[in-house]
Amino acid sequence: MDSKNTLNVPESSLPRLVIIGGGFAGITLIKALNKNDFQIVLIDQNNYHTFQPLLYQVATGGLEPDSIAYPLRKYVKRFGNLFFRLAEVQQLLPEKKQLITSHGTLKYDYLVVATGARTNYFGNTNLECYTMGMKSVPEALNLRSLILQNLEQAIVTKDPLKRQALMNFVIIGGGPTGVELAGALAELKRFVFKEEYHDLKMDDMQVFLIEGSPKLVGGMSEKSSKRTLGFLKKLGVQVFLNCRINDYDGHKVEIENGTPIPSENVIWAAGIKAAPVAGMEQAATGHGGRLLTDEYSCVKGFENCFAVGDVALMEGDIHYPKGHPQVAPVAIQQAELLAKNLSRLVHQKTLKPFRYTDKGSMATIGRKKAVVDVTGMFFSGTFAWFVWLFVHLMSIVGFKNRLATLLQWFSNYINFNSALRLIIRPYQPKQ
Amino acid sequence: MDSKNTLNVPESSLPRLVIIGGGFAGITLIKALNKNDFQIVLIDQNNYHTFQPLLYQVATGGLEPDSIAYPLRKYVKRFGNLFFRLAEVQQLLPEKKQLITSHGTLKYDYLVVATGARTNYFGNTNLECYTMGMKSVPEALNLRSLILQNLEQAIVTKDPLKRQALMNFVIIGGGPTGVELAGALAELKRFVFKEEYHDLKMDDMQVFLIEGSPKLVGGMSEKSSKRTLGFLKKLGVQVFLNCRINDYDGHKVEIENGTPIPSENVIWAAGIKAAPVAGMEQAATGHGGRLLTDEYSCVKGFENCFAVGDVALMEGDIHYPKGHPQVAPVAIQQAELLAKNLSRLVHQKTLKPFRYTDKGSMATIGRKKAVVDVTGMFFSGTFAWFVWLFVHLMSIVGFKNRLATLLQWFSNYINFNSALRLIIRPYQPKQ
Repeated sequence: MDSKNTLNVPESSLPRLVIIGGGFAGITLIKALNKNDFQIVLIDQNNYHTFQPLLYQVATGGLEPDSIAYPLRKYVKRFGNLFFRLAEVQQLLPEKKQLITSHGTLKYDYLVVATGARTNYFGNTNLECYTMGMKSVPEALNLRSLILQNLEQAIVTKDPLKRQALMNFVIIGGGPTGVELAGALAELKRFVFKEEYHDLKMDDMQVFLIEGSPKLVGGMSEKSSKRTLGFLKKLGVQVFLNCRINDYDGHKVEIENGTPIPSENVIWAAGIKAAPVAGMEQAATGHGGRLLTDEYSCVKGFENCFAVGDVALMEGDIHYPKGHPQVAPVAIQQAELLAKNLSRLVHQKTLKPFRYTDKGSMATIGRKKAVVDVTGMFFSGTFAWFVWLFVHLMSIVGFKNRLATLLQWFSNYINFNSALRLIIRPYQPKQ
Repeated sequence: MDSKNTLNVPESSLPRLVIIGGGFAGITLIKALNKNDFQIVLIDQNNYHTFQPLLYQVATGGLEPDSIAYPLRKYVKRFGNLFFRLAEVQQLLPEKKQLITSHGTLKYDYLVVATGARTNYFGNTNLECYTMGMKSVPEALNLRSLILQNLEQAIVTKDPLKRQALMNFVIIGGGPTGVELAGALAELKRFVFKEEYHDLKMDDMQVFLIEGSPKLVGGMSEKSSKRTLGFLKKLGVQVFLNCRINDYDGHKVEIENGTPIPSENVIWAAGIKAAPVAGMEQAATGHGGRLLTDEYSCVKGFENCFAVGDVALMEGDIHYPKGHPQVAPVAIQQAELLAKNLSRLVHQKTLKPFRYTDKGSMATIGRKKAVVDVTGMFFSGTFAWFVWLFVHLMSIVGFKNRLATLLQWFSNYINFNSALRLIIRPYQPKQ
């Protein structure tokens, strides 16, 4: 890589706005920005946007990656003044207003850091090495392969203890991802695996969901939490609350004050931490390494440098003294306002401060159950599932994706007949 | 792997029929066999069937893998007396009627070798190492990633020679795969890449198709061959006939009596060879290493051991003195007859010899042109393309797959709006 040289981007008379990250915040910015005010450069390590709320569906064979990922170059096609670069940002040099990337340096006039969050293993290297993450499409596909490979392995394994370990699925973390994954696995066991592995005693397959706090889906209402627990138990998931993991060596999950669970399938969905850019170490950070910003998303102590979405922790919103939740609606709303504020900035108008509108939250458990909290109301069951489905479909970027997703879901819903249980690339261990 | 032990398959009072390979021949056998006559064990290295004729669509982002791959366990669900094992067959011990697999040994009463063919590099290790193959889903996905990554690389490359090499696509082999791939790439350039890479001079992208013989689609009629050449030229593909490759070092294609072509994207679609099982070395083989069989698909010199499809070369069909072509219809027809003959065998009835019914052949060039040869007739153009589309859709296994494929195709056909240009897992070099 010619990192000593500059990154190849055309010269422009407009100020250059560089956006790092094509997640919810990044693509919302691209759509909402006034293209006459800036030359826009989007940098991402992947050439696609990932609709993270549905990653668990990719992992459990309900959807193919193309249903939840969207090529970032499709925006390039739509907006002539937008340039996409597939590159890794290695260092921010704020005093020079420069980025060092894997393909050369790039000057900016305005910078938006929308790099999101990564999995937090809280410093436990065993957990990092042996558990499966659920933050990216390759991770989800890797998990899909592992699940299927371990069942194939179970069928040829004669040692009953080893076979049981291959058929024990342990999900650590009872947030929406953990809950959705547990529900999907329990249903796969019941409706799919029992028939497709008729010579394996499928009743032996166990799904464990382990949560450190006293309740599931912690960000939701007490009612939603309880109903979620009820739905999961009905599906046969073994839920452990107030339960902490000490360690996992690749074969056995060590539980604080409990019997270890032998398992070859452990999924870590228990925490995230902000993923800022190198060179921002001197920035003030809050809980989970999030960059402190003011109400205009401006990173404290940096000039013309903004942070939105999961990587940011905005101060000054009196309703959220500890910062906003790290969810897509916050990222989208922050990006929408920032797009307008950036134009106000170049036209020397007064900026507007951010106020978050909480539109509610939801989680799905299995193929036709969900819990929904919205403006103080709570509802659950099949109707909630349709609400969940509708909201997620409407949120997925791009018409083509939406239609394909809907059709795949509809087909799955009717007949559990997905053809996605393919081990295309075998599971690859991290080390 | 407990290879010293036996492969875990239930005991049965029925004779055990082992099928190696879940390709066209293998799955046709499974569907056509009388399940009351045998305990059937299917062994494959993958847990899915690949519809190989459409692999080029996966490579060029027209279809996702699930549209052309089908989980083999779906048959297990349909047929209670069928057992699938994801395993590698390491050795055949014909005198013991035993197979050694990666998960233990397995006794058989009847064996069907349906292992197909693999890419033939004719002993050139450089070609094997540096060119991209097109025989499996992972290979097709790897090629897809390489194409997209090299275009991203081209956009940040300032050296014009290196950039040109990144934008030169060389396809070696002018059979159906090579022709279809060349057409798809030329159309991607014209209808998709020009817009999505608006800051790359896309006119510089070149597609070369190199064929050693004097004609394209060698198995087809003179008219089809000429029309194919015309279609490709119109799409801007540079076709070299009577042209042989000497070598490729990963950067430059050396051509016999010609100027080398600098290219970072070279696809090898120039030959296949049979892929029999180890332990069959003493079997008589014909051209391309194919196992010689009699008209009942029985491998010469082996007892109760049959070979069908690409791996076999059947003697005795007077219309095909050099053997049948290595195409799906032969594999399917041979398997259909063999299924009946195996039942005749156990019931001590007279077997019937195989006669191939040639239903014609076809190839597609781009999104609405095709050539079709059928019973002495030839036609081409858009109508031929619809015939091609219809025949391929009807052939794809399983209703779900067919519908999804049709919808994806239809959507692509209308608006070139496929969302599949995702580099999910980066290109992985072979060494």
